[in-house]
Amino acid sequence: MKQILVLGAGRSSYSLIRYLLNNAQAQNWAVVVGDFDENIAKEKIDNHPNGRAIRFDAHETAVCDQWVSQSDLVISLLPPALHYLAAQSAVRFGKSFLTASYVSPEIKALDAQARASNVLIMNELGLDPGIDHLSAMQIIEKLKAEGANIISFLSYTGGLIAPESDNNPWNYKFTWNPRNVVVAGQGTAKYLQNGLYKYVPYHRLFSTLEHFHVDQYGEFEGYPNRDSLQYKEVYGLQNISTLIRGTLRRAGFCDSWNIFVQLGMTDDTYKMENSEQLTFRQFLNSYLPFHPTWSLEEKLANFLGVSANADMMHKLQWLGVFKNIPIGMPHATPAQILQKLLEEKWKLGENDKDMVVMLHQFEYELKGKKYRLESSMVLEGKSTIDTAMAQTVGLPLGIGAKLILQDRIKSKGVQLPVDPEIYEPILAELQSFGIKFKEKITEIV
Amino acid sequence: MKQILVLGAGRSSYSLIRYLLNNAQAQNWAVVVGDFDENIAKEKIDNHPNGRAIRFDAHETAVCDQWVSQSDLVISLLPPALHYLAAQSAVRFGKSFLTASYVSPEIKALDAQARASNVLIMNELGLDPGIDHLSAMQIIEKLKAEGANIISFLSYTGGLIAPESDNNPWNYKFTWNPRNVVVAGQGTAKYLQNGLYKYVPYHRLFSTLEHFHVDQYGEFEGYPNRDSLQYKEVYGLQNISTLIRGTLRRAGFCDSWNIFVQLGMTDDTYKMENSEQLTFRQFLNSYLPFHPTWSLEEKLANFLGVSANADMMHKLQWLGVFKNIPIGMPHATPAQILQKLLEEKWKLGENDKDMVVMLHQFEYELKGKKYRLESSMVLEGKSTIDTAMAQTVGLPLGIGAKLILQDRIKSKGVQLPVDPEIYEPILAELQSFGIKFKEKITEIV
Repeated sequence: MKQILVLGAGRSSYSLIRYLLNNAQAQNWAVVVGDFDENIAKEKIDNHPNGRAIRFDAHETAVCDQWVSQSDLVISLLPPALHYLAAQSAVRFGKSFLTASYVSPEIKALDAQARASNVLIMNELGLDPGIDHLSAMQIIEKLKAEGANIISFLSYTGGLIAPESDNNPWNYKFTWNPRNVVVAGQGTAKYLQNGLYKYVPYHRLFSTLEHFHVDQYGEFEGYPNRDSLQYKEVYGLQNISTLIRGTLRRAGFCDSWNIFVQLGMTDDTYKMENSEQLTFRQFLNSYLPFHPTWSLEEKLANFLGVSANADMMHKLQWLGVFKNIPIGMPHATPAQILQKLLEEKWKLGENDKDMVVMLHQFEYELKGKKYRLESSMVLEGKSTIDTAMAQTVGLPLGIGAKLILQDRIKSKGVQLPVDPEIYEPILAELQSFGIKFKEKITEIV
Repeated sequence: MKQILVLGAGRSSYSLIRYLLNNAQAQNWAVVVGDFDENIAKEKIDNHPNGRAIRFDAHETAVCDQWVSQSDLVISLLPPALHYLAAQSAVRFGKSFLTASYVSPEIKALDAQARASNVLIMNELGLDPGIDHLSAMQIIEKLKAEGANIISFLSYTGGLIAPESDNNPWNYKFTWNPRNVVVAGQGTAKYLQNGLYKYVPYHRLFSTLEHFHVDQYGEFEGYPNRDSLQYKEVYGLQNISTLIRGTLRRAGFCDSWNIFVQLGMTDDTYKMENSEQLTFRQFLNSYLPFHPTWSLEEKLANFLGVSANADMMHKLQWLGVFKNIPIGMPHATPAQILQKLLEEKWKLGENDKDMVVMLHQFEYELKGKKYRLESSMVLEGKSTIDTAMAQTVGLPLGIGAKLILQDRIKSKGVQLPVDPEIYEPILAELQSFGIKFKEKITEIV
C-alpha cells in the first residue's frame, strides 16, 4: 500500500481529496490529509476507510519530517509561503512533491538536490497555473509538429459565476479567496507584444484589456497577469512576438473595478486613520478632493468623466459604497475595508454555482497562410463545495499523483508540467470529468 | 574648547561646516568632520585651524563611540538609515544630537533613554523638514496669541533653479539628489482637507495640485508630501480642518512629469529585460501598447489626449525620450534609466544658481472675520557649491548647535524644532543670511 500525504484541507482541496479517495482502493492507496485544523481534514476524509485526518503544522519540522518520511508522495495545498518547508522535507526523504502554486525561487533552488535524490518536484499543476500549461503545450507541440510558426499566444483564465447564478450588475461573485481578488494585479504586469517587452503599472492594468467571445457564454474581457515573459522559455516559444497571460472577467467588470484602483481603495500597505469611525460613504470620500457644493456622487461622476446615472455609477450604488453605514473595522487598510463591503455583496449563495473559463488564442503561419486557433474550456461547478475551481485545481494534482505512483513520469528535479508524458495523460483523464477544450481554427485574411 | 562632530561631508554639508568654522574661534570650538571619503571631509575643512577631517564609517561602532565620547555635540548628515547608529552612541555618552532628517520610529524610541541621560535629540532641523517648522510655528503661536482660530494651513517647499539659470522648457534642474527627485512621492500621500482625511495614491499625486503666485518670481504649483496628518499634533492644530504639506515646482512641471508616472517609467522595483540593448525610444515604447500604424509620438499623444505639438510633447522631445540612442545600462530599473536621461538634461551648469522657495498659506478667523495669511521665503544660491539648498539645510543645524553649546536650549529627549526657545533665535539669525519671510494678510470676503 502506498501512502499519499495531502497538506492543507481548505476549500480548494475538496475535489483532490475526493479523487484520491475514489481511487484509493483500486490503486491500493492510503490518503493522509493534514491541516492546522484537524476537523476540516476529518470533514474531507468523511470516514473513508483509506483516509486518515491529522493535525498538521508545517512549522513543526520533526512532525513534518515524520509524516513525509513514511509517505510515498506529498501534495501541498498549504499557503504558498509554506510549500518550501514541506518540499525541503520531501527532498530530504526522497519523496516526490506536487503543488498547484507558482514555482518560487526557493523551490527552484532545490533542483540539484531533488535530482540527486531522484525526486520530482512538480509545480504549477492546478488550474492557472496548471491546466493552462497542459493545454497550451499540447497545442504548441501539435502546431510545431505541423511545421507552423507561432506568432502570438494569448492565454486567459477566470474563476467566475455560472450563468444560472449570475444575478448582480457586476456579473461576479467571490468563488475564490476574496483577499486575492481585491489585491489582484498589484505590481507591474510584464508581457511581450509584437516583439517588444511591455510593462503595465497597476493603475493601468484594468484598462489594458483583451476582449473575447465564447459561444453560448457570451462576452468576456481579460487583464494581463504579473509576468508572462518567463513563459517564452517555458513553452519553448523563443521566436514568438506576442505572449500574454491574463485573468478573465465578464465584459464590463474591469472598467468599474478600475474605479477602486484609480481612487486608491485597493491599497493594502497602510491603515486608514480612525477607520472604525468611518462609514462606507466617508471611506469613498477619503479618495476624492473636497468640493464646496458637489455631492459625493457628483464628485465621483466628474472624476470618472461619466454622467451620474452611468452604468459604473449604478454598479457602485448596488455595492452600497454611497451609504452612510459604519464600517466598524478598527485599524483597517483600504483593501480590508473594500473586501468587507464586497464580501457582503459578492457572497456565493447557498445554491450558487461557479464557473471556470479558460481561453487560448494562437496566431501562426503555416505554408504561407496565417491562422487563428482559439481553444476554450468552460466548466460549471456542481455545488458550493464541489466547485469548478476545486475540480480544476485539484484534479490535475490527483491525476499527476496517480501517474507518479504508477511510475509513468520519468522527469526528476524541479519541473513545470510542460512535458507530453505528463500533459497527455492528465488532459485525457480530465475529459472524463467534463474538463474539455473546444478548438476553432480560422484563416486570417 | 568644545568639540562638534559632523558626520557626513557630502554636498549638503558645505554651508553647515562653513558656519561652524566661521564661528569656531569666537565660540572656542573644534570642528571634526567625518566622512567615509576622508578627502571630501578635508576639502570642506579647507585647512581651517579649528577643523579636522577624519575617515568615518558609521558601522564601525567602536570608532564611532570613540569620536562621539570625546565630542560635545553630534550633527549627522549621514544617509537617513545611518542616523540611528550615531544617535545611539550619542545617547550612550550623553551628547546632544542634531539631524535635518525626518524623525524615524527607531530614533523616537530613544526618547526615554535620551531624557534619562539629559540629552537632546533634535530632528527635522534642516529646510523641509526644518525651516518650514520654525517659520510655521512662529506664525501659529502669533495667531493663537491674537485669539485667532486657524482653519487651514498649506505649507509647500521646493528646491528649484534660480530665474537667471532657468533656461529649459521644464523650468527645472537637479539641485539636489536626482534619485530622490525621480522616485519622489511613491507611496500614498495623506492629508487633512475640510475636516476629512484624504488619501492620494502615487498615480494621482501629480494631478493633485495647489497653485501659488510669488511676487517677482511668478507662478508655482505643488503636490502633496507623504504624510501631513501627524503635523496636526506637532503644530498643536488639533482643531484645524485643512492641513497639507507639499513640494513646489514651477507651474506646468507636474503635468509633464505625470506622463512618466502614468506610463510607469519611475518604477524602481524591477529591472527591465535587456535594458542594455534598449534605446530611449524603445524604453518609452515599452510603456505604450502596440499599434499597427501609429508612430510612437502618435501613440503617446493619443494616450495623453493631447495634440502632437502640445507643450508636454515638446518637453518630452527636448529631453530626448524619442531618440534612438542606446541607454547602455545593463540590469537597470525604469527609474534608473529615466534618471540617466534626466541627469544629462537637467544637470546644473558651472555657473548655475539654485533657488529655494517656501510658501505658507494660513486661513483663520479672528473677531468674526476671515483672513488669509501668506508667508513666503525665496533664497537664491551663490554658486554651485554655496547653494541655497546647502544654506537652508545647514544653517539651522549650525545655529541650533551654537544654541545648544551655549546652553540656551532647555528641552531634552527626542524633539522637533517647534518650541519658541529654538525657533525664535534660529529664525532671527537666519535673517542675517538673507533667509527672510515676507508676510501678506488679506481679508477673505
